[in-house]
Amino acid sequence: MEKTHIVTRFDKELKEIDKQLHHMAELVVQQLADATEALSEKDVKLAKRVRKGDRKINDLEDTIFDLTTRLIALRQPMAEDLRSAITTFRVATDLERIGDYAKTISNRTAILAEEMPMKSATNSIKRMSIVVQAMLTEVMEAYAERDLSKAEHARVQDEDVDQMNSALFRELLTYMMENPRNIEASTHLLFIAKTFERAGDHITNIAEHVYYLVTGEQYENGEIDVE
Amino acid sequence: MEKTHIVTRFDKELKEIDKQLHHMAELVVQQLADATEALSEKDVKLAKRVRKGDRKINDLEDTIFDLTTRLIALRQPMAEDLRSAITTFRVATDLERIGDYAKTISNRTAILAEEMPMKSATNSIKRMSIVVQAMLTEVMEAYAERDLSKAEHARVQDEDVDQMNSALFRELLTYMMENPRNIEASTHLLFIAKTFERAGDHITNIAEHVYYLVTGEQYENGEIDVE
Repeated sequence: MEKTHIVTRFDKELKEIDKQLHHMAELVVQQLADATEALSEKDVKLAKRVRKGDRKINDLEDTIFDLTTRLIALRQPMAEDLRSAITTFRVATDLERIGDYAKTISNRTAILAEEMPMKSATNSIKRMSIVVQAMLTEVMEAYAERDLSKAEHARVQDEDVDQMNSALFRELLTYMMENPRNIEASTHLLFIAKTFERAGDHITNIAEHVYYLVTGEQYENGEIDVE
Repeated sequence: MEKTHIVTRFDKELKEIDKQLHHMAELVVQQLADATEALSEKDVKLAKRVRKGDRKINDLEDTIFDLTTRLIALRQPMAEDLRSAITTFRVATDLERIGDYAKTISNRTAILAEEMPMKSATNSIKRMSIVVQAMLTEVMEAYAERDLSKAEHARVQDEDVDQMNSALFRELLTYMMENPRNIEASTHLLFIAKTFERAGDHITNIAEHVYYLVTGEQYENGEIDVE
């Protein structure tokens, strides 16, 4: 009787933390969308709002970390329960990092707004951003539903993001070679593309945390290239 | 009596995990040093060895994570002990990421070895690498000794790394503008410099984990810019 009671309280408390984690993920997706819009519309005000909005995501990570640590200390969970608790703040760590990327993209937007337009490159970045946002939404569903095949689906899409980044890299190199006046803007766009590519790597990490959560084993090819 | 016994076993087991963590940190410093040497000496063989060596670091992270999770499940530590255990794998996560960076630098070395030399930029990168290696060694000492002032010292050096990166960014832009044949190599060097800058950010994270470990509170300015 007593044991069941404790388990139920653990589950209830973990559910509360998970709610915050999903809220955090929604904020991160929104930040990525806003950072991308600010970039393509040269909307410096929106970029500023994204930079400010990152604070809230960082605070949520701290809250989730503190709540989870307290939960482990109080309820002393074993096996799957411990795994669930630990996974919560592993996911939060990756989400926080993706949030940072939205902010750093916005740091470059103010500089880029002064530069000449490069519509084709900006459109490529927009496409990357949309794929990354969809991946993040999907991997969080996989987490909520403990759904391994959904996690794997999110994970493999990372290859598309890598390919988009490589293609854009070649494209931007040609712009730079054509006209030295394109060099500075192209360089910033290179870094922005790279940032989305790295966001994809962190989503891959989350997919692997889901794998660990469900199976109790570390993902085998856990060697994520964060280039 | 029984309690003391349990505490001692926890400490002993945590010490064993810490040994692995410090071994991991040493490997990461060595990988950074080797990646830098491979870059500046155009040593494609050494670069290949660095790429291969990353696997060992990833395996160590998995081992540390598994051992720590098991330790928490078995010993059910409270307060500082729980904090110590959790910090172990937070540090391991940052170390693993820095290790990845050594690998990605080496991915670019093979391409750069074919390109024209840019001695000044390579030297700047070498200096960044040396600072980053020293920071990492210092922050791991801070961790071992629970030394907050040492952690803070490692943390503030990150500003130097950021400045070195900004200076190199300007320098490389001028090379690109001078001669389109410099563009591709310069772009790779930009990313390599950025990689060291991000490694510095992860060392800052570790400094903040030490702060949490010693004080039980999250570091206040925990908003690290990973650009």
